[in-house]
Amino acid sequence: MKNKQILLARRPRGPVQEEDFRMVETDVLPIRDGQVLTRVLYLSLDPYMRGRMDEAKSYAPPQPLGEVMIGGTVAEVIESKNPDFKPGDLVAGMAGWQEYQVTGGAGLRKLDVGRIPPSAYLGCVGMPGVTAWYGLTRIGKPKEGETVVVSAAAGAVGSVVGQLAKLRGCRAVGIAGGKEKCDLVTGEYGFDACVDYKAPSFARDFEAATAKGIDVDFENVGGPVFDAVLARMNAFGRVAVCGLIAGYGGQGIAIQNARPILTSRLTLQGFIVSEHLDLWPQALAELAALVAAKRIRYRETIAQGLQSAPRAFIGLLKGENVGKQLVRLV
Amino acid sequence: MKNKQILLARRPRGPVQEEDFRMVETDVLPIRDGQVLTRVLYLSLDPYMRGRMDEAKSYAPPQPLGEVMIGGTVAEVIESKNPDFKPGDLVAGMAGWQEYQVTGGAGLRKLDVGRIPPSAYLGCVGMPGVTAWYGLTRIGKPKEGETVVVSAAAGAVGSVVGQLAKLRGCRAVGIAGGKEKCDLVTGEYGFDACVDYKAPSFARDFEAATAKGIDVDFENVGGPVFDAVLARMNAFGRVAVCGLIAGYGGQGIAIQNARPILTSRLTLQGFIVSEHLDLWPQALAELAALVAAKRIRYRETIAQGLQSAPRAFIGLLKGENVGKQLVRLV
Repeated sequence: MKNKQILLARRPRGPVQEEDFRMVETDVLPIRDGQVLTRVLYLSLDPYMRGRMDEAKSYAPPQPLGEVMIGGTVAEVIESKNPDFKPGDLVAGMAGWQEYQVTGGAGLRKLDVGRIPPSAYLGCVGMPGVTAWYGLTRIGKPKEGETVVVSAAAGAVGSVVGQLAKLRGCRAVGIAGGKEKCDLVTGEYGFDACVDYKAPSFARDFEAATAKGIDVDFENVGGPVFDAVLARMNAFGRVAVCGLIAGYGGQGIAIQNARPILTSRLTLQGFIVSEHLDLWPQALAELAALVAAKRIRYRETIAQGLQSAPRAFIGLLKGENVGKQLVRLV
Repeated sequence: MKNKQILLARRPRGPVQEEDFRMVETDVLPIRDGQVLTRVLYLSLDPYMRGRMDEAKSYAPPQPLGEVMIGGTVAEVIESKNPDFKPGDLVAGMAGWQEYQVTGGAGLRKLDVGRIPPSAYLGCVGMPGVTAWYGLTRIGKPKEGETVVVSAAAGAVGSVVGQLAKLRGCRAVGIAGGKEKCDLVTGEYGFDACVDYKAPSFARDFEAATAKGIDVDFENVGGPVFDAVLARMNAFGRVAVCGLIAGYGGQGIAIQNARPILTSRLTLQGFIVSEHLDLWPQALAELAALVAAKRIRYRETIAQGLQSAPRAFIGLLKGENVGKQLVRLV
């Protein structure tokens, strides 16, 4: 039995290219006692992976060259010599960019797919959902009636941020690229407003959408749009810094006008959701209930086949996806 | 009786100039019941005044044009029709840039000058001292053994930050301009190290002085030196944003590399000490005891005569002073 894998072939210079990856075929080894063999159904593509491709100092060690690209997955157990798993079980894990994984089962979580589709465990009811929940509730700490802004609002994290803010009685304002995404954000996700940062009227539109200023910003992007947000923050505003995707091309990322940090007495806090595992059960329980009750809605962009992962990942970094970007392998 | 006053004549365009101010002479009005007449002994010059000179959105309303420049003062009561004060009392207040003030006494605080010289109430045992105490203890939250960095380390706030950090068992590293100031910071103030940001070897010197990274930054300056600090922050570091004096020329102030906020999961928090009046008694009690016991040391740069205030203020913004910048009026 053969296993297709995608490796990191080289570190990107500037924007990620398909040539930064390499596909190989290896043998699937027989499993030993305590191990399981899983077949990957869905691969999750997430912006954080871009950071891992660099060697720069960061919160996590870089993705090693020549090894299987990391990534969250939903997989099916095919064969098991581990009493905790049986063939047919669906599990969330970190198999990475490959078709099969042999594992001891330590990082696997069995999924209840009765009320929630398997792929949602890579989105709203997985890492992106918990990211939204943590940054909003633990750093943003929004109070009823406050204005919450989130960039990349049509994405897997941003869409949940706004919906959770609405459920807490806030005004939710999204920022996204293009009319199609903005319509999704206000229509499907129910934000109060969404502003197209690519529109020539962005500055005026954003001012109108945040007429009472901004109390909480959930920052996924950075760059000029982040500067526009900072300039409109109210006194004692909170900024959860979740991602700076605008700087993922390798060119660094600046805050052109840092003065509001002082003049508006802001708190900016960067965070990594994997460092707050103690809160995952609470967050996942809330998110699962909301998704099952359809009080949180989501969209997915699904690429087909492992070989499509590099192209889909490059598209994600350019904002070409809508909602959660997945790769379906089966 | 005549009162000399300095008014804000116009808002600065670019760096502050002496022509932005205007001196006038007015009559001292007779005091009414409940009022006191005070003669200003010392005028405090502080970087925050620069922000007030602009019309930009900020935490405080701008200094009105054509009115007496605001400023903290130590004054002597000359005449009193208020039972709380008698001639000869020394009081701290906000008389601003003038020789005499007639006031109802609401903002005045009577000073105990037995163990502490009057001028210290404008420095270590006044607003700058409380600023250092609040930012360090409430935002920086340093733990024993951590490394605390402070910019403008030879100044009225910075010198206290480092000394309080040392008293809490931290490694204190100052940043200052020039050998003279750096020698003062390590000698008189007892910091573990002080790095000259004007020296060609700054990057190397700073790296050596912060070999174990930085846990707390007390930021007074902003600009390229702040970027150098951010790049060396340890995970979960705290940055108290007290001042961004590098941007006070009116050109705005940038953070060129914002990425460490995310990758090192930093917390940056801007603050204004006057919004935390509830903590002033606790802070002042600690600072007064330390100054009286000579466990906090300070220096003063004193200009003579009200007419020297504009020039001294411009010098303060350029970093020409050492320690607390005062103007002695008597």
